[in-house]
Amino acid sequence: MASYLHQIQSPSDLKALNNREKKQLAAEIREFLLEKVSQTGGHLASNLGVVELTIALHSSLNTFQDKVVWDVGHQCYVHKLLTGRRDDFDSLRQFGGLSGFPKRYESIHDHFNTGHSATSLSAALGMATARDLKNESYQVAAIIGDGALTGGMAFEALNHAGQNRTDLTVVLNDNEMSIAENVGGLSNYLTRIRSFPVYSRLKEDLESFIGHLPALGKSVYRTAEKAKDSIKYFFVPGVLFEELGFTYIGPIDGHNIEDVTEALNLSKKIKGPKVVHVLTVKGKGYDMAEKYPAKFHGIGPFDVNTGKKIKPSAKDFSAVAGSAMEALAEKDERIVAITAAMPDGTGLNNFKDRFPNRIFDVGIAEQHAVTFAAGQAVAGLRPFFAVYSSFLQRAYDQVIHDVALQRLPVTFMVDRAGLVGNDGETHHGVFDISCLSAVPGLTIMSPSDESDLKAMVNHTMTLSGPSLIRYPRGQAFTLPTDNTPVKTGKGRVIKEYGRDFVLIAVGSLSRVGLEVLEKAKEIGILGTLIDPRFIKPLDHQLLLEYGQTSDFVYVMEENQKIGGFGSLVQHLYQEHDLMKKVTIFALPDEFTEQGDMTALYKQVGLTADDLFESIQEAWKNHASKVVSIQSDERKRHEKTAN
Amino acid sequence: MASYLHQIQSPSDLKALNNREKKQLAAEIREFLLEKVSQTGGHLASNLGVVELTIALHSSLNTFQDKVVWDVGHQCYVHKLLTGRRDDFDSLRQFGGLSGFPKRYESIHDHFNTGHSATSLSAALGMATARDLKNESYQVAAIIGDGALTGGMAFEALNHAGQNRTDLTVVLNDNEMSIAENVGGLSNYLTRIRSFPVYSRLKEDLESFIGHLPALGKSVYRTAEKAKDSIKYFFVPGVLFEELGFTYIGPIDGHNIEDVTEALNLSKKIKGPKVVHVLTVKGKGYDMAEKYPAKFHGIGPFDVNTGKKIKPSAKDFSAVAGSAMEALAEKDERIVAITAAMPDGTGLNNFKDRFPNRIFDVGIAEQHAVTFAAGQAVAGLRPFFAVYSSFLQRAYDQVIHDVALQRLPVTFMVDRAGLVGNDGETHHGVFDISCLSAVPGLTIMSPSDESDLKAMVNHTMTLSGPSLIRYPRGQAFTLPTDNTPVKTGKGRVIKEYGRDFVLIAVGSLSRVGLEVLEKAKEIGILGTLIDPRFIKPLDHQLLLEYGQTSDFVYVMEENQKIGGFGSLVQHLYQEHDLMKKVTIFALPDEFTEQGDMTALYKQVGLTADDLFESIQEAWKNHASKVVSIQSDERKRHEKTAN
Repeated sequence: MASYLHQIQSPSDLKALNNREKKQLAAEIREFLLEKVSQTGGHLASNLGVVELTIALHSSLNTFQDKVVWDVGHQCYVHKLLTGRRDDFDSLRQFGGLSGFPKRYESIHDHFNTGHSATSLSAALGMATARDLKNESYQVAAIIGDGALTGGMAFEALNHAGQNRTDLTVVLNDNEMSIAENVGGLSNYLTRIRSFPVYSRLKEDLESFIGHLPALGKSVYRTAEKAKDSIKYFFVPGVLFEELGFTYIGPIDGHNIEDVTEALNLSKKIKGPKVVHVLTVKGKGYDMAEKYPAKFHGIGPFDVNTGKKIKPSAKDFSAVAGSAMEALAEKDERIVAITAAMPDGTGLNNFKDRFPNRIFDVGIAEQHAVTFAAGQAVAGLRPFFAVYSSFLQRAYDQVIHDVALQRLPVTFMVDRAGLVGNDGETHHGVFDISCLSAVPGLTIMSPSDESDLKAMVNHTMTLSGPSLIRYPRGQAFTLPTDNTPVKTGKGRVIKEYGRDFVLIAVGSLSRVGLEVLEKAKEIGILGTLIDPRFIKPLDHQLLLEYGQTSDFVYVMEENQKIGGFGSLVQHLYQEHDLMKKVTIFALPDEFTEQGDMTALYKQVGLTADDLFESIQEAWKNHASKVVSIQSDERKRHEKTAN
Repeated sequence: MASYLHQIQSPSDLKALNNREKKQLAAEIREFLLEKVSQTGGHLASNLGVVELTIALHSSLNTFQDKVVWDVGHQCYVHKLLTGRRDDFDSLRQFGGLSGFPKRYESIHDHFNTGHSATSLSAALGMATARDLKNESYQVAAIIGDGALTGGMAFEALNHAGQNRTDLTVVLNDNEMSIAENVGGLSNYLTRIRSFPVYSRLKEDLESFIGHLPALGKSVYRTAEKAKDSIKYFFVPGVLFEELGFTYIGPIDGHNIEDVTEALNLSKKIKGPKVVHVLTVKGKGYDMAEKYPAKFHGIGPFDVNTGKKIKPSAKDFSAVAGSAMEALAEKDERIVAITAAMPDGTGLNNFKDRFPNRIFDVGIAEQHAVTFAAGQAVAGLRPFFAVYSSFLQRAYDQVIHDVALQRLPVTFMVDRAGLVGNDGETHHGVFDISCLSAVPGLTIMSPSDESDLKAMVNHTMTLSGPSLIRYPRGQAFTLPTDNTPVKTGKGRVIKEYGRDFVLIAVGSLSRVGLEVLEKAKEIGILGTLIDPRFIKPLDHQLLLEYGQTSDFVYVMEENQKIGGFGSLVQHLYQEHDLMKKVTIFALPDEFTEQGDMTALYKQVGLTADDLFESIQEAWKNHASKVVSIQSDERKRHEKTAN
């Protein structure tokens, strides 16, 4: 069997293949993806679903000139394979390796970086209007899933594009899924469309039917032409898009390369904004992924034959959070959970099974989720919105404007706070402290371990206003602590050997902090580890006391250094006239790349060794200063004695 | 003529009126609004447009129980009049007075606070689901304008409501306007609907027509029932809403109290989510406002007869910004302007007249606006997005994810940064420094006066990455400066009398700073006024030098104190081991209320007197310490001498 995949060094090599060969290429790509992603981990199901679509896209468009924007972007592996990055696939999502998302710095065929949902139409419309103004001539296309289409900004862009009327192709990759099952009126609408005959057959049927249409009587006060328009609604399923000003083409069988290519070619000929509606199956061609697309959405290394993960996942902080909410919901009927298309990722699957009426999956719609929660709180419920830190950025205004301003008891379960690893720069949750600590009336907590997270979830019920718990991605663990009850604005000492230094470690970094304490103790430097627990309000008393009495003050956190927790401590000291140096270990003022956590911690200087070395260095200078002062005094003393 | 308005102490008093009397009431309300708003200023046109709608709403619903959410909320004056707040109207939008927006603390008839766009459907859906879970029984309605409907989160909520199927009424107040003329495919769609016969006539016509429908031949492969569905599209205009799962009722003449009441009553009987589509005229009943609705959207005190403002508006910073962009656009074809339905407010009207093809009004859609700009920048343009600070909060994620991560040369013209006055807590632009200074690669500027703003707009063209200029609401002015050219990361000394203290004043607060300097000089305390110009990157050299050599360091800014500019200076000093007290005058950790700027500055302690007193106090203590040290030294000297 000829290997077509190895002939493709650039998308222009596709021209040499006929449709039969492209079909064979698709099969090879599936095999390649399975082999590679089972080793590196990554987004499998969505990529298996767009193999033919991507081949068709590169057959119809010339991405040396034409622009393509991949919404979310995790479905870009096939595109990367066809654009000269095949040999880099072993490094996929690894530190220094190929990104799992489109990156402009990686290839001239990547025209816009993505990672979060629903951005592609806006970016593509921006490009199309720029092309028009500059009198240039190229195609612009956005590929967006039906799940991402529920994001409000996609609708904002549809609305603008429908009016703007520039040439633009929106490829709606409809797999009936976002990450979990899709929700919403739009999804129901698309389900109805799916029952329509696919495009190629449709054209003839429609024409033949309109020919046979009986003349409508005079009693009708609309013209026959408008009636034909209305008949069009009956046959042409894209009425919703048509009403917004788009030309609708579809539905198309997304696994038929020829049909998709033809539809895309047709779209190039039609002026104005177009929707090409393509039906695909997530996980196509790999039984396990077709059956469990959510599991194979983003997955670690797995065994291709069994579909089982090679490292079975241990209980993570998301699961702990989910079960804590569940336990609370059992006792209190007012508790409800909200997720923005992420019941899996945020550990809410059990909650969903047990309280199906009390969990609300609102679609990929973080803005709505927050204000929806505010509405529920006004009406007497206690909503918990579980959301990744980097996605909560989407609802910054709603947190301020709809929740905090009205002091509503909404709890934000902020998952994936801190570095997230292989998803990289678009997904790290490293801005939440900076942007949210300025919001009046928010209570912000960060648990140091599993039992602390549980205690904080319970603690939110004692609060009359909004609160936020930020916890990291990854395996849960338990630290040796005395389980001091959580009290608003109170931190705790986890371990105290002495006051040569105090290390204030935010959240789960306390584990690293303990290591630092032990290392330092071994060489005779005796420190104290403080778990502040509350980012807001700060524990003034505890932080000031240790600031005053310790020789050195350190802060460790997984947030940007600017506006982070360390900066809040510096500010606190200033406000209380404590002129004490606070050394901060946090993320530098740049975007942190992808990689395994060990590599990333090393890169940003957040390892126990980094802290230890800094402390050792400071202590050395300090000691020599103390010695020199002592020797100065001795000399003076000797002088006086003489 | 009987005065009906004075009979209405509570919405239940409406029951005593018949339709003729309600019509008379509407006329009285219009008269009242004109009289009051012409004195206090406020949102006039939108309120004149909803007089009948609001009377109908309170006739159909019982807001002692039923919940109503007013989108944006500036159209709630009539509602306030009908719910016992008539006598407070002289204090409308004044310090300590009646708010121009719904406030839960003001009345039990205000069920949700609003201010920003497109939040009402989410909040109402939250309430409706809470009602269902608690087995309670009341109506929930959201009133949303066609302009606000272009906000993505409204669509997110429509999508969720369409699936959720709970009972909920969305009143679409369609006046063909947001603040400026409406834009978007949705707007075009609504325009088409408007040509349909109004509801009351429609019902009969539809039934009669369907009765006359000829049977469709067997060649058609769909059932006749489905054909009737398609015919429905032809006659029932709300297909877009119907497709999303809503029952559509309309269009209704929004100035016919009886029709609107009937439609709302009908809606109460229909299960599930409903849209009641009401056609209104912005400014209805006041010629000037009907003719110039944008002018009378939000207006200061004016003469009712001439429509002229009592204080004609002087050139404000928005106008300066607009003309600076215009001047730039003249020289450079790559310059384009983007507005989210605010060409007026952001000073872009002249730009629009001169470069109609190079300005993009995207609707009330800040998220889309930012990523649209990113797309334009990728394709070689230099977009300027002019937006109010508090609305940019809506696009925090897009600034990070779509612009900053790709280092794209998008300029954010952040208008209304700082306190805004009478619009109050929802509209103050006081979080931007806190949330945006943490974003890597952003250049953030704040001009001290008019010429500085112009210079900064020009300066953005020298930058290869994203930048942001934050400037205040209000009249532009010019300070006596030497017009030092703008250089990235460089601040400047505006005036130096001495180094008894240094005052670092952010942006236009330099004007207050100059006053402080003079006052202090009068009593012999000699200070220096620094204009940092750049919030990011900071001018390390300048700030450190004056920190080291001045006795006292002060910062003034109109941003929350937490994470604000002062906090950045404290952080800078810490990073450079300068243990120097930095006293910050900024907004306390609470939401600042409404009022005229003088009252607000006083309340938050940002007047020249506040600063002056603090400096005087500090100096007194300092001087007495210096004296006591001197006297100690003298004593020691005397001792030695003895």
